[in-house]
Amino acid sequence: MTDILHRVGIKSSLDEAYKALATREGAAAWWSNKVQGESKLGGVLKFTFIADGREIGTIDVKVIELQPSKRVVWQVVGGPAEWIDTKISFDLRQEGDWVIVLFKHAGWTEPSEFMHHCTTKWGVFLLSLKSLAETGKGSASPNDVQIGDWH
Amino acid sequence: MTDILHRVGIKSSLDEAYKALATREGAAAWWSNKVQGESKLGGVLKFTFIADGREIGTIDVKVIELQPSKRVVWQVVGGPAEWIDTKISFDLRQEGDWVIVLFKHAGWTEPSEFMHHCTTKWGVFLLSLKSLAETGKGSASPNDVQIGDWH
Repeated sequence: MTDILHRVGIKSSLDEAYKALATREGAAAWWSNKVQGESKLGGVLKFTFIADGREIGTIDVKVIELQPSKRVVWQVVGGPAEWIDTKISFDLRQEGDWVIVLFKHAGWTEPSEFMHHCTTKWGVFLLSLKSLAETGKGSASPNDVQIGDWH
Repeated sequence: MTDILHRVGIKSSLDEAYKALATREGAAAWWSNKVQGESKLGGVLKFTFIADGREIGTIDVKVIELQPSKRVVWQVVGGPAEWIDTKISFDLRQEGDWVIVLFKHAGWTEPSEFMHHCTTKWGVFLLSLKSLAETGKGSASPNDVQIGDWH
């Protein structure tokens, strides 16, 4: 098993950062604009990713932890084969002027080339989250930064 | 042991991408503007990182592999304690219109919070590498994107 790890600092309130992670509207503004479902404990959010006007994939996550201002955890229940049953967690804390987000996408069975790609892409989306919480504007799909042929 | 992995696609020639990794001038344009030493087999490059006008750290790497248009490997011989003796490799290949860079920073003893930070920061610097090879302009330190309180 191997994990994707990231750390970003956000100049916002804990509440603002938490809302961006814990609500459907928040996730839509930094990860993918196209999302269905409810962000509540046990609920499933279905994200659709678009590039060049075409659907390039969907990811379904079940919301398994929601601790206000502290922690959000999703379990992947649909999407690319390598993602199924992996867990995506966001831990938040205040550190001086910064909200620190520790990100973990845990449970990859091997360090495949796709995992390399997803590591870089998560970095891009976490900067989108940072921008959303700091300025009110993220770069969710389909307006995300393209990092290569796998988008 | 745990590794940082990334994958970026660059719309440039293999030669252009290789030069950005294998020469001091290249590395200065995407990683840190302030670099001393020679990029030759067995040579040591000393990078200094600056933020808000102050030096925030140095990293010394020994160049241990230079395979034109294919692979560059550095061994860390100076810098943060967690970096010492780790290896940083860049594998290049052509894939249609894209040059694919597989990045690995191998040999971390534990998935510390600093490793989380370095993962995100490497992503930012690899996008700087991409920009350099595609447009001639990277965002090396001190013009790098700040991702939090640890810069």
